[in-house]
Amino acid sequence: MRIPFRSSILLTLLALASPNLRADEGMWTFDNLPLEQMKARYGFTPDQAWLDHARLAALRFPHGSGSFISSDGLVLTNHHVGHDFILQVSDAGHDYIRDGFVAKARAQELKVPGLALKNLVSCENITARIEQAEKSGKSRQEAIEALLATERKGSALACESVSLYQGGEEWLYRYKVFTDVRLVMAPEYDIAAFGKDWDNFSYPRHDLDFSLWRVYENGQPYHPSDFLKWSEKGAANGDMTLVVGHPGRTSRLETLAQIQFRRDVQNPLLLRSLDRQRKTLRAFAAKNGESARLVSAALMSIENGYKVYAGELLMLRDGKALENMEKAEQRLRASVALDSKLKDLAGNCWDRIQECQKTRTELAPEERLLLSRSSTLVRGPLEGALRLLAASDATLKAGIPDLDVENRNLEIALLACGLREVQEELGSQHPLTQALLAGQPPEEVAHRVMIDTTLLDPAARKALLDGGPKAIRESRDPLLQLARQLEPLRKNVRQRVEALTAMMDEHSLHIAKARFAVYGKAVYPDATFTLRLSYGAVATYPQNGTLAQPFTTFGGLYDRADAWGPAAEDASWALPARWVQRRGTLTPSTPFNFITSNDIIGGNSGSPVLNRQGELVGLAFDGNIESHLGRYTFNPANNRCLCVDARAILEALAKVYDADAIVQELRH
Amino acid sequence: MRIPFRSSILLTLLALASPNLRADEGMWTFDNLPLEQMKARYGFTPDQAWLDHARLAALRFPHGSGSFISSDGLVLTNHHVGHDFILQVSDAGHDYIRDGFVAKARAQELKVPGLALKNLVSCENITARIEQAEKSGKSRQEAIEALLATERKGSALACESVSLYQGGEEWLYRYKVFTDVRLVMAPEYDIAAFGKDWDNFSYPRHDLDFSLWRVYENGQPYHPSDFLKWSEKGAANGDMTLVVGHPGRTSRLETLAQIQFRRDVQNPLLLRSLDRQRKTLRAFAAKNGESARLVSAALMSIENGYKVYAGELLMLRDGKALENMEKAEQRLRASVALDSKLKDLAGNCWDRIQECQKTRTELAPEERLLLSRSSTLVRGPLEGALRLLAASDATLKAGIPDLDVENRNLEIALLACGLREVQEELGSQHPLTQALLAGQPPEEVAHRVMIDTTLLDPAARKALLDGGPKAIRESRDPLLQLARQLEPLRKNVRQRVEALTAMMDEHSLHIAKARFAVYGKAVYPDATFTLRLSYGAVATYPQNGTLAQPFTTFGGLYDRADAWGPAAEDASWALPARWVQRRGTLTPSTPFNFITSNDIIGGNSGSPVLNRQGELVGLAFDGNIESHLGRYTFNPANNRCLCVDARAILEALAKVYDADAIVQELRH
Repeated sequence: MRIPFRSSILLTLLALASPNLRADEGMWTFDNLPLEQMKARYGFTPDQAWLDHARLAALRFPHGSGSFISSDGLVLTNHHVGHDFILQVSDAGHDYIRDGFVAKARAQELKVPGLALKNLVSCENITARIEQAEKSGKSRQEAIEALLATERKGSALACESVSLYQGGEEWLYRYKVFTDVRLVMAPEYDIAAFGKDWDNFSYPRHDLDFSLWRVYENGQPYHPSDFLKWSEKGAANGDMTLVVGHPGRTSRLETLAQIQFRRDVQNPLLLRSLDRQRKTLRAFAAKNGESARLVSAALMSIENGYKVYAGELLMLRDGKALENMEKAEQRLRASVALDSKLKDLAGNCWDRIQECQKTRTELAPEERLLLSRSSTLVRGPLEGALRLLAASDATLKAGIPDLDVENRNLEIALLACGLREVQEELGSQHPLTQALLAGQPPEEVAHRVMIDTTLLDPAARKALLDGGPKAIRESRDPLLQLARQLEPLRKNVRQRVEALTAMMDEHSLHIAKARFAVYGKAVYPDATFTLRLSYGAVATYPQNGTLAQPFTTFGGLYDRADAWGPAAEDASWALPARWVQRRGTLTPSTPFNFITSNDIIGGNSGSPVLNRQGELVGLAFDGNIESHLGRYTFNPANNRCLCVDARAILEALAKVYDADAIVQELRH
Repeated sequence: MRIPFRSSILLTLLALASPNLRADEGMWTFDNLPLEQMKARYGFTPDQAWLDHARLAALRFPHGSGSFISSDGLVLTNHHVGHDFILQVSDAGHDYIRDGFVAKARAQELKVPGLALKNLVSCENITARIEQAEKSGKSRQEAIEALLATERKGSALACESVSLYQGGEEWLYRYKVFTDVRLVMAPEYDIAAFGKDWDNFSYPRHDLDFSLWRVYENGQPYHPSDFLKWSEKGAANGDMTLVVGHPGRTSRLETLAQIQFRRDVQNPLLLRSLDRQRKTLRAFAAKNGESARLVSAALMSIENGYKVYAGELLMLRDGKALENMEKAEQRLRASVALDSKLKDLAGNCWDRIQECQKTRTELAPEERLLLSRSSTLVRGPLEGALRLLAASDATLKAGIPDLDVENRNLEIALLACGLREVQEELGSQHPLTQALLAGQPPEEVAHRVMIDTTLLDPAARKALLDGGPKAIRESRDPLLQLARQLEPLRKNVRQRVEALTAMMDEHSLHIAKARFAVYGKAVYPDATFTLRLSYGAVATYPQNGTLAQPFTTFGGLYDRADAWGPAAEDASWALPARWVQRRGTLTPSTPFNFITSNDIIGGNSGSPVLNRQGELVGLAFDGNIESHLGRYTFNPANNRCLCVDARAILEALAKVYDADAIVQELRH
């Protein structure tokens, strides 16, 4: 069913319906800024020249944002956005992650093969053209593909289609792509991520999370039409800030029922699972140094995930956050109920989605165990065995990893952990528990399967594989037998989950269409990893019974380092040697990080933070723990964007890294 | 009914019953320390010499704790414990609160008339003697009074009786009292209470909350037998800490039902009332500068109260805190159920207390409105009118204050606020609402009563008072008429509340007796503003998604001052001029405040924090926001004691206050 996106009745409704936007909320497209709200709150609205300048200075990194900051193509982003590329240009003799890197001259700048940055040259609303093509019988996808194909012919620009408002608008974005990008400067990991995983997502914060790069064209530094001027003065508490960048993905249209499912079922289930996993890995790590090394990265990643989802759950359980979502939902439902077409389209979709949550709740433990990428049940050898069972001849070799004794022991521990989860989450009477355990203890099953299987031995595995699919199907290898038990049950769960998801997606799409019909562009579209502007200000929030300080300083960095000492918690607050040596030369009162009320999310990392004059006052690098609900809703009371202060970068470049040429270039 | 405190069956039970004490929990009397727990957790137990030394060095201030810290009778406590006495010795020309005070020589030390400090010389368990006297027919109170009277005859020491374990033990405490106490040194309020009301109860913290005093005897500095040695090294993260001081009052024996009443009824009611009051006062303050000045202290106090009870409510709503209370209660109930005598005594008391909460819930709004000292209904002129109605001739004059126009306007606003609370909390059909408002708007009633009354005019009031009680009873003055409406309703509520409280107290006492019978002295008694020891360690806790730093530093103090600037939030983070000027001379890494897991509460302010050697490493001055539940329960996961670091005091004395003689004396 197609629906008109705006009817005359709706124009009247629109005057009545308010989208319940909150102060500073929104990741807005450049063609549709909330000028009235900006004017009312901050007495400032950017004009077209301001916007063009910011857009042309903005860059998209593979998983983040950046910007041009000099006429010679110097580029600023976060250290963590550039992390993998810094690693890429490191080698056995040069650990630029640990030691940092400063190119003393342009010739020393390090080219990163494969790294491409994108600069948004133009945007075009193609909704009408697509709808026209749809009328001639094409599917929307076909219409978009055809238009893109035409567009790409003979253009040096990279063209991408962007679907906004869940299909309410279709756009064509044209990018200039830069493929010669070189590393200019990166601080040491210990200062870029000071406080390590402990301080991640937290505030007050002291991370010098930046890195510098240069775009070259034809072997020469590129001279961009627009680059951001570096603010010497920086921002003050209360100053308006504008963030220009590429927020990745939000789900702000989820219904209350979906959010409640996350709160009551999904997140608790996930946290229990992660807790089992970290306990398993900690026990494994405690055996000896080699074991500890083997699992340290996985353990860190699980601890990090635990923190993210525990934070999200904490926020979800705070009644106020859900209260606002509920109000917005009621308001939209009331508007939809007033219009017969919209009522037909979406009137009962909220209730239908709510009904779906019952099945979703029943399926959740099996879905997590059998389909999640982070399950400890279906992974490594067992996952390989499942792939073998499903494979045609051609892919038989993509299968089971070679494992040494230590790795095999780890797989035993993880499989036992997964089997325990089956037993604890599903109960001993569940068909899956009975199929996998048959009344035996999880540890015993895991041990027997992994010890008795011949599939971990390359020679035995080759022999089996040489027998082809038939031999595999008939093999009595215990790992393959376990996989055979699992397979039909897993297939069944996958089918049920897919059917349920399709049903919910359909309802969600109807709600999205109804919402666009009611509010139109008075609201912002969900994030799509494309250029957006968010407005806000340097702003405190209530924290620990007092107010969070709007800035941290170099003095605060050393305070935290002194308070913990260099060894505490695996050297989480250790300073690089250079930062210890140069301490006396730094001005303690120089701002280091600061917080703003801008509405950002993953993908915005590396976004420039601008003042009204379009000057760079900071660099967005994270959100506080309270911002973890930002995927679903924006709470202006405590959702905060964390920024590296532009003054901190300048002071560090000048006084710690002796990078005078770069300082000159920035001040130019 | 009297019950034996220990029977032979109970000795068996005792082995089974564990009091569910948590790590580092307890404010212990010196005769009964949890030596096994201390040994197990920290490998240290203080011996008798350690304890005698600490006790003889400890002092009790009128509302806090302190200690001798030199052979010349120098005394250390908090700035906030000494605040009123510093104010007392200030005068028009000398504002020692604002400017601080340093006696450069002993002759300059300022005597504080009326200030008396107490030093606990000996303690004696008099339970057996009291029980003996009871057998001869005396009431417990009479027996104690008689013993105290005998004791006081011919003794220079001040004797006090102390009832521990809700009467499970009676003790006699003998104090040496010092009445010549002089102010030696006090820092400026701005550094003693840096962060003002905002940072109060919060952490990380930067308060130099100390003051120095000297005890004199016969006009000469007193030489105490014991004083605390100042630790030059201070404490490190994880080091054991022992706090010796006078915790004021805890209610750790409240039943779960009583705590739930606080959570679900009392605190929300109180917070709604405080919120109405602060809104009223804010609106009043917004009129003009004079109005703002008039209410600023009251407003600050209400904001502070709001923060305390909102913090407490937040903790009460955290399921985990109540979970532990519930477990402890179930364990005790199970033990009581096993012994027929105890079952008779207290078996049904928990249920009875729970039943009482229903009536308590019904009564709560009226109790708050009519009987609470912080009610805005019964206060000022109306309270005076009620006193007039109740008074005999002799006290007629103690009554209604003289009010200027501004103060009268304030009373109108507050009475209207109280009447609105009546209307909103009780509903328009409630007898109290009907009696006070008779269908009229609260603002109109308040205005009419306060404008039309003649009682605020001294001459008219005198004329009425001259008529005696009869004239007052028959007066048609609107304020007296309102009081007459209120009076019987108030009396009724008071009687019902008193009856209910007496009933609950009786049940609580039975539970306390049963508890003492089961656990004996395996537990600590509720706080009684007498000398206790609590053990713990310098310890972090989870905060904002990371770990709270165990120490703050001088660098952190300046970080917070720089981050806010001197003007923000009514100069909450402004530094005294001396601290701005001397910044360069201070070592930024010197620890300033630190946190420990010691179990303390109000009254402990000013307590010395000792290491194993009995040396002073810090000065307890506050608890974190999470410690607000400490009145009812102790949560080792995040209940933290906040301390000024001994090294911070020394550094400030030497480098900011040029108090070299004091530094010499401390290092002696």
